Amino acid sequence: MNRMQEIIDSIKPVYQEVVNQANEHLNQLTKPQGSLGKLEDIARQVAGITGEVMPIFDKKAVIVMAGDHGVCEEGISAYPAEVTPQMVLNFLYGGAAVNVLARHAGAEVFCVDMGVNADLEHPDLVSRKVRKGTRNMAREAALTLDETVQAIQAGVEVVDELVEKGYRLFAMGEMGIGNTTASAAILCALTGLDASIAVGRGTGIDDGKWLHKVSVVNKALDVNGLRVDEVNRSSAEYALDVLMKVGGLEIAGLVGVILGAAKNRCPVVVDGFISSAAALVASRLAPLSASYMLASHLSQEQGHAKLLEAVGLAAMLQMDMRLGEGTGAVLAFNLIDAAGKIMKEMATFESAGVSRG
Amino acid sequence: MNRMQEIIDSIKPVYQEVVNQANEHLNQLTKPQGSLGKLEDIARQVAGITGEVMPIFDKKAVIVMAGDHGVCEEGISAYPAEVTPQMVLNFLYGGAAVNVLARHAGAEVFCVDMGVNADLEHPDLVSRKVRKGTRNMAREAALTLDETVQAIQAGVEVVDELVEKGYRLFAMGEMGIGNTTASAAILCALTGLDASIAVGRGTGIDDGKWLHKVSVVNKALDVNGLRVDEVNRSSAEYALDVLMKVGGLEIAGLVGVILGAAKNRCPVVVDGFISSAAALVASRLAPLSASYMLASHLSQEQGHAKLLEAVGLAAMLQMDMRLGEGTGAVLAFNLIDAAGKIMKEMATFESAGVSRG
Repeated sequence: MNRMQEIIDSIKPVYQEVVNQANEHLNQLTKPQGSLGKLEDIARQVAGITGEVMPIFDKKAVIVMAGDHGVCEEGISAYPAEVTPQMVLNFLYGGAAVNVLARHAGAEVFCVDMGVNADLEHPDLVSRKVRKGTRNMAREAALTLDETVQAIQAGVEVVDELVEKGYRLFAMGEMGIGNTTASAAILCALTGLDASIAVGRGTGIDDGKWLHKVSVVNKALDVNGLRVDEVNRSSAEYALDVLMKVGGLEIAGLVGVILGAAKNRCPVVVDGFISSAAALVASRLAPLSASYMLASHLSQEQGHAKLLEAVGLAAMLQMDMRLGEGTGAVLAFNLIDAAGKIMKEMATFESAGVSRG
Repeated sequence: MNRMQEIIDSIKPVYQEVVNQANEHLNQLTKPQGSLGKLEDIARQVAGITGEVMPIFDKKAVIVMAGDHGVCEEGISAYPAEVTPQMVLNFLYGGAAVNVLARHAGAEVFCVDMGVNADLEHPDLVSRKVRKGTRNMAREAALTLDETVQAIQAGVEVVDELVEKGYRLFAMGEMGIGNTTASAAILCALTGLDASIAVGRGTGIDDGKWLHKVSVVNKALDVNGLRVDEVNRSSAEYALDVLMKVGGLEIAGLVGVILGAAKNRCPVVVDGFISSAAALVASRLAPLSASYMLASHLSQEQGHAKLLEAVGLAAMLQMDMRLGEGTGAVLAFNLIDAAGKIMKEMATFESAGVSRG
């Protein structure tokens, strides 16, 4: 736990002075003040994060973390668990949606095996396997504390290594059959939300299976003693406890990705429901990490809006997507690049000879 | 009017068979069916529009139409009318937000003088000036029928010429101090909405000026006899009447851009409040044109959601933007490109050896 505290303590506030400098520049540009909305918010935020008024993000990474879930034995998904390793190979061969959208965004996909229940080998696979899948959270804690911290540390180290190679902008992605169930349990445990509101259709289950999924989440909360009151719900210790008991290895890895990005002063783009569950855990573990996060899209998964609200994030894209993998986050890279170009390329009122209002 | 009818009659339905072919392909790709949401909608729609399962949009154009508004003499804007020609020059010199975002999207800006109240000359300016600004709609009809039809035809011809040069994807943009007032009047006249709901803050007016703007819109509706019942509100003739009496030359030009794109079987991306007012007029003049439109963003301008709803469009971006110029529409080009790459580059369940749900 000393190592955890060290990571958390290494996260500093953003540079408010550089935020102000970026804002002053935005107000010189030929447009009504604030009229570019979230593009202006992005410009200010990345300035504060990096300490540069106009940072350049040449190398961008999508970190796709994969892990299996013991809770799959309860029959909560439309797809069999064997799809997790199959999709990992699809990521490695470049054929998945996130590969296509990453190439489109000029970003690279790094696929991390955090806990896939299969023996995987591929030269491009980042192997950080903590164990072959979690335990079934509807019967016992999904992970031990040691496994959880190990997974978070792995996420931090993956980012550290990429920063070393020059990557300065990150998107979160994941793959793990069963992980909308784990994420819904995290949402309930950390906000007190009812499972019937937190649980969605995942990859596409019918009404009967949805009702069953709600009951499995309720059982996991009961078995693991995660129905606590609002006062006790907000501590860092409790967030770690929730992650351990109803989380997942890829989710813990993504918590590490956020902490690693924040520690390295890099923006990190949150994807959909599962990534946002990791974001909520990270924001409770290390509240300062929230200012390093950018939301991307609002997923079609039922509880996603509640998760974003709990972290304090506002989505930019409403694409009705529900695929995960980082597909929504990587689409937002284009908007971050756009904000950077607005800062660098737009004319000022003075240079263009345009009257102010 | 024969020429108008000819244009309207030249618009045909989309190819439903090609929509189905695109859909079949999407359902082979390694993702749960429908999980890429609006990216899949785009892929199906552009297939139906172009008649190609995987169309390529090499050359993309943002058509920025500019015009002045006689109603400015009522004092309804935060900026003086002289900003219209100043911004046109800014577009031509490449320093405005739309220029930056168009370069980012690999698109070109074509700036069209539809009715700027100044003598403008520049080698890149497309000059289609119908007259120097509209008449004050709070006192009389903004345009004559002849001027309105001439402006629509100009828009169609601008698209015809660009199609001739190989452009096959269009975004709508505009500049015209006072044009949120005209667009709000169009929204009220065509939907019966109360002016207090349709009128927004434009470039940024205070409460007092907003109340005045509402009263000016109400006056324009009364003076021009545009408070008709639901039955009479939906005809093509009435839409043309509304455009003539409370529209603008750049708005009429954009109606022409939509009709021109539809006639040439090209997708056209709608921008914010003013472009959407043109889209509503076009959808009433030529209902088939609606299937050639793609929405881009939801603007911060108060009445925009109502306009999109009236046309039957769903926004993809929620950026809190309120600048116009085509800035939201051109941001959506990236999403259209992304949809195209999903169709072309993703692996199928069979090719990747992934199990189906």
